Amino acid sequence: MLKLYIGNKNYSSWSMRPWVLMRQSGIDFEEVMLRFDSFAPDSSFKQSVLALSPTGKVPLLVDGDLVIWDSLAISEYLAERHRDKQLWPLPAAQRARARSLVAEMHSGFNALRRLCPMNIEARLPEVGARLWAENADLRADVQRLEALWEPLLASSGGPMLFGQFGIADAFFAPVCMRLNSYGLPVSPAAQAYVQSISRLPATQAWVQAALAEQDFLPFEEPYRQQR
Amino acid sequence: MLKLYIGNKNYSSWSMRPWVLMRQSGIDFEEVMLRFDSFAPDSSFKQSVLALSPTGKVPLLVDGDLVIWDSLAISEYLAERHRDKQLWPLPAAQRARARSLVAEMHSGFNALRRLCPMNIEARLPEVGARLWAENADLRADVQRLEALWEPLLASSGGPMLFGQFGIADAFFAPVCMRLNSYGLPVSPAAQAYVQSISRLPATQAWVQAALAEQDFLPFEEPYRQQR
Ligand SMILES: N[C@@H](CCC(=O)N[C@@H](CS)C(=O)NCC(=O)O)C(=O)O
Ligand SMILES: N[C@@H](CCC(=O)N[C@@H](CS)C(=O)NCC(=O)O)C(=O)O
Repeated sequence: MLKLYIGNKNYSSWSMRPWVLMRQSGIDFEEVMLRFDSFAPDSSFKQSVLALSPTGKVPLLVDGDLVIWDSLAISEYLAERHRDKQLWPLPAAQRARARSLVAEMHSGFNALRRLCPMNIEARLPEVGARLWAENADLRADVQRLEALWEPLLASSGGPMLFGQFGIADAFFAPVCMRLNSYGLPVSPAAQAYVQSISRLPATQAWVQAALAEQDFLPFEEPYRQQR
Repeated sequence: MLKLYIGNKNYSSWSMRPWVLMRQSGIDFEEVMLRFDSFAPDSSFKQSVLALSPTGKVPLLVDGDLVIWDSLAISEYLAERHRDKQLWPLPAAQRARARSLVAEMHSGFNALRRLCPMNIEARLPEVGARLWAENADLRADVQRLEALWEPLLASSGGPMLFGQFGIADAFFAPVCMRLNSYGLPVSPAAQAYVQSISRLPATQAWVQAALAEQDFLPFEEPYRQQR
């Protein structure tokens, strides 16, 4: 049985991707949560992760002896292991396009990531409005999301980017959570996609569990003093 | 014929990866250089890239009607298109490991990237020594490279990470250029790998062309006033 090690569901955007991917596409796995206490070398989180993998980060996918780190490598592994699930689009050109989106997400959108850390439970529209007014790079990141999503949704007919749910959608799920929490303004077509992602059963299961968590972690909370 | 659009060879670390990958593994392609003038919206670089792809970034791979952006998506496309070249290791577990390294490189090593931008022609050992002394995150990035490379080189026997040259090596080629330019201290095993990468015919061809370029681009030169 595959084992997926994740961090706190409220905060861990990288963990959310493979979890939603597996849950939504019906791949069985056992989940192990390594709760964040801090990222200091002697934290219990770090000690637990380092016992499994020298990266010291989650998510980790363990399949027998094999430890795969990084959400993108995990997704590629799952796509190969479960070809019947078509986690990437089947036509080569569509697959190349999906990988372009995913790789761009993986290495970019730095302003959105830095300024709007994932925090599912929080509702921070005033903070979002201020960040939006003050940061051109944040606005550019959101415009770039719209430019990526809109033509794909138009040509696939939605509700997912390539019609059927896959890795590209799982990679944007944490971004959709950020857009919700910070109330960032997006076009109607992009907003419809954010809602489709938010309504997926796997997303809802993740969000419910995030809301049930009780941790308030100051190093993940630039904008609040308490819940 | 595949067309690869790249930036200046002296500066464009992301362009170097697919170029070295294709050249070293014998995949034919036509190269088109879009010289950097600036990254402003009205720059000639931006105008030329935007005519091809809304990302406005290089590298881009064009195969007929298909425009693939992002060095990682390009590499996956090439791996599928040229299975005989074994750009990823053949055993599934090794392939998963190679993808973990590559995805970590793609989304991480931010200190090394930010503090030591690729500049093949420059020799900046004093700058490197200062950065090394002042930045714990830079030292952590280099230690992480050693921790990634050393066990792989030990088990493959070298000179490449998985024995034979592949995507993982191409992804670390720009990092090797940075280690050289800034003279950052690395372990003997890691240094041997940096040298093996530097001596690949494809790397040498890229470096020769970089040295022949005459551009001095102030926005890529935090540490120099002139060549
Ligand atoms: N590129 C990695 C990033 C993983 C990552 O940064 N995970 C965070 C939690 S969301 C972490 O474990 N951070 C611990 C640390 O930075 O020390 C991936 O895609 O899995
Ligand atoms: N993740 C992308 C990054 C590409 C990238 O940032 N390219 C730089 C040149 S090395 C660029 O075109 N920058 C233009 C800009 O940032 O406006 C990849 O792997 O291809």
